[in-house]
Amino acid sequence: MTQADILVYNGTMLTMDDQRNIIPDGLLAISGNTIQYIGKDEKGSVSAEKELDAEGGLILPGLINGHTHAAMTLFRGLADDLPLMDWLNNYIFPVEGKMDDDFVRVGSLLACAEMIMSGTTTFCDMYLFEEEVARAAKEAGMRCLVGEVLYDFPSPNYGTVEKGFIYTEALIERWKGDPLINIAVEPHSLFTCGAELLLKANDLALRKGVPLILHMAETKEEMEETEKRFGKRPAQHLKDLGLLGPHLILDHCVHVSKSEIDLLARHKVSVVHNPESNMKLASGVAPVPEMIARGIKVGLGTDGCASNNNLDLFGEMDMAAKLHKAQRLDPTVIDAPTLIRMATIDGARALGLGEITGSLEVGKRADLIVIDINKPHLTPMYNPYSHLVYAASGHDVRHSIIDGRIVMEDRRPLTLDVEDIMERSREKSKKVRQWVR
Amino acid sequence: MTQADILVYNGTMLTMDDQRNIIPDGLLAISGNTIQYIGKDEKGSVSAEKELDAEGGLILPGLINGHTHAAMTLFRGLADDLPLMDWLNNYIFPVEGKMDDDFVRVGSLLACAEMIMSGTTTFCDMYLFEEEVARAAKEAGMRCLVGEVLYDFPSPNYGTVEKGFIYTEALIERWKGDPLINIAVEPHSLFTCGAELLLKANDLALRKGVPLILHMAETKEEMEETEKRFGKRPAQHLKDLGLLGPHLILDHCVHVSKSEIDLLARHKVSVVHNPESNMKLASGVAPVPEMIARGIKVGLGTDGCASNNNLDLFGEMDMAAKLHKAQRLDPTVIDAPTLIRMATIDGARALGLGEITGSLEVGKRADLIVIDINKPHLTPMYNPYSHLVYAASGHDVRHSIIDGRIVMEDRRPLTLDVEDIMERSREKSKKVRQWVR
Repeated sequence: MTQADILVYNGTMLTMDDQRNIIPDGLLAISGNTIQYIGKDEKGSVSAEKELDAEGGLILPGLINGHTHAAMTLFRGLADDLPLMDWLNNYIFPVEGKMDDDFVRVGSLLACAEMIMSGTTTFCDMYLFEEEVARAAKEAGMRCLVGEVLYDFPSPNYGTVEKGFIYTEALIERWKGDPLINIAVEPHSLFTCGAELLLKANDLALRKGVPLILHMAETKEEMEETEKRFGKRPAQHLKDLGLLGPHLILDHCVHVSKSEIDLLARHKVSVVHNPESNMKLASGVAPVPEMIARGIKVGLGTDGCASNNNLDLFGEMDMAAKLHKAQRLDPTVIDAPTLIRMATIDGARALGLGEITGSLEVGKRADLIVIDINKPHLTPMYNPYSHLVYAASGHDVRHSIIDGRIVMEDRRPLTLDVEDIMERSREKSKKVRQWVR
Repeated sequence: MTQADILVYNGTMLTMDDQRNIIPDGLLAISGNTIQYIGKDEKGSVSAEKELDAEGGLILPGLINGHTHAAMTLFRGLADDLPLMDWLNNYIFPVEGKMDDDFVRVGSLLACAEMIMSGTTTFCDMYLFEEEVARAAKEAGMRCLVGEVLYDFPSPNYGTVEKGFIYTEALIERWKGDPLINIAVEPHSLFTCGAELLLKANDLALRKGVPLILHMAETKEEMEETEKRFGKRPAQHLKDLGLLGPHLILDHCVHVSKSEIDLLARHKVSVVHNPESNMKLASGVAPVPEMIARGIKVGLGTDGCASNNNLDLFGEMDMAAKLHKAQRLDPTVIDAPTLIRMATIDGARALGLGEITGSLEVGKRADLIVIDINKPHLTPMYNPYSHLVYAASGHDVRHSIIDGRIVMEDRRPLTLDVEDIMERSREKSKKVRQWVR
């Protein structure tokens, strides 16, 4: 009899491995932070101190949120249904200019609580005061890839961009070797970052062996601006600067052309799709089926809570599937298994974390969730993939394990004092109300 | 001190009345099945046997699901991501041909459990064996408008269409005067019902003073078929038959033209929008902002669970808002308050139940829900409308009252044995698996 630290049993296991194995009566054993055994539940073959009964539910890899601005939870619902420029100039930019480190810390803790409670185990963040995001994730026990946003104008956090590079390099050094926290270099976008900044950011990312992340081709306005400034399309501009490569992760890519998709594919660039944010801000519809068909690794993200307004990746999967079917008038253009892959293994690979997380395989870190299907809206079950994408929501997540640690059991978050975080968030929201007055 | 049967207090009350009153610290008193008092929570002004503390949450009218095929819960996830004709001909039609009354009864009870648990208090159903749907709603304590589907070919329930009319008339007589159950005459669509059937259905509806409900302009294939058969657009065909009027409710209206919208508006026809189903089946995008601008009463529906795959109207509101913003590339084209009206008072008016339900007003039936906002994904709250549409889900509904009766308290359904219904549903699903083999 094998000995393990944690056992998860009595569920249908969706491994999301390359063979897409589904184990109907599955058992998973965890030793330390690693998956030690995966297989059929044969009574008595493994024992452990802690045993989690999935009670006939679904066992799957924890979800990967490929693009967040975590602390924007504190702006959730502050300003909706407005023209983009009104929203940005009269609400988002003014309040962001007044934030401090404690604000980002509280907002990020709130985001971690929400993400854990809706099945996300890894997130990729871009924001200000990113050290606080890393600390919040560490406290929550969440896996993340985070980076300080860099642009040509001064930041309320670090001041001039030179200091932004010093801040980013310090982040990289400070968190080196951490089992949960990964750092990236994150210039904001082509319309806020000149060539000099982009080249310097790319050098730093390559020198430190970390990802380079930026927003690209999100809105039509951005496309016009890029055309005007550089006389070429964004992906071509990045290519000419020498930035395209497997270390590059691009958020949005709503308005990429066929030749740009080809460029990104040839250079093994990854993309993160944010359907709810792109829809709510009326930015457009990213050509996701084409990017996937061309072999691009496409992950799924929620973007910030000011343009979503939640961090539930189940809703994001549902929205993405329906959006692309509706846009092409073709129900076969994207399917449920593809969406689950985007939210798990493909998302992990897009972030450069595919060796560590995103699927249930022996030797990988134990990042997994258990879905309770004993509910009217998940009864009966013919197809677990369909259920997850089209019927389930984050509320159906019952247990969550990250890096071999149980972070939620029976919907009780174990790493965070959620009541306290919500109270502190409500306090912060009073300030926000004053800022936009 | 006034005496009431039930008190709901300590919440932000969204009345959804014509003045759009919001009462920050609201109290609502119920006497029998009727709202007796609405106002500020002044301690000791009203007392009641049963008091429900909203604990700072939201109190709003119960949601109105304008279009369901309730028993299709038993086909949830049976066949997804397929071409429409493959889905219909190889899955849906074969299984529907084998159903019996007990099948519809179990599926409808499952639907009622799901709807109550996600905040719906009224639904409008079209299916086979509709007497069983009415009985299920009655057992669940839900308000509904239901009707037996009529078409030119034989039905597994009643046989020839003549018997369908007898069945429908019997339904109307049997449920006359019931406080919860309302009956409609429901020919299926223009491509399954000839002129004779439609005229007879209209006569029956007018004679009995009940609504006439049919699917219209759902798919492009249907439009081509209608054009071929009648040489005109569907709304014009209905007008020429004399069917347009305030008693008529049309589901979908995806492919209606400007002149058809004008026709529907002038004849005070109501429409029910089903965004998730239209997207998932790749049918298209209904011109909802134009219909609303033209003064048409537009409600919101989930359609059946085979094309959704749940009955959560919160998800439907979110999807509808984002869909129309994305399609028009305009974030202001529809807003959160409009969506809530579609799911409450406008939906009630579309079904001809606007005098009874859909808003919190003294004298109306007590159909209301309480939302728990003390959760990370609903913290902080700047705008309750935004919260309901963009951040909340059906799981956040804590209490539900229909016709003055508490049907769910602290998420415990009180009228239905949900475990037993789920068990019976799983049994039925075994048969379905055999039918599609």
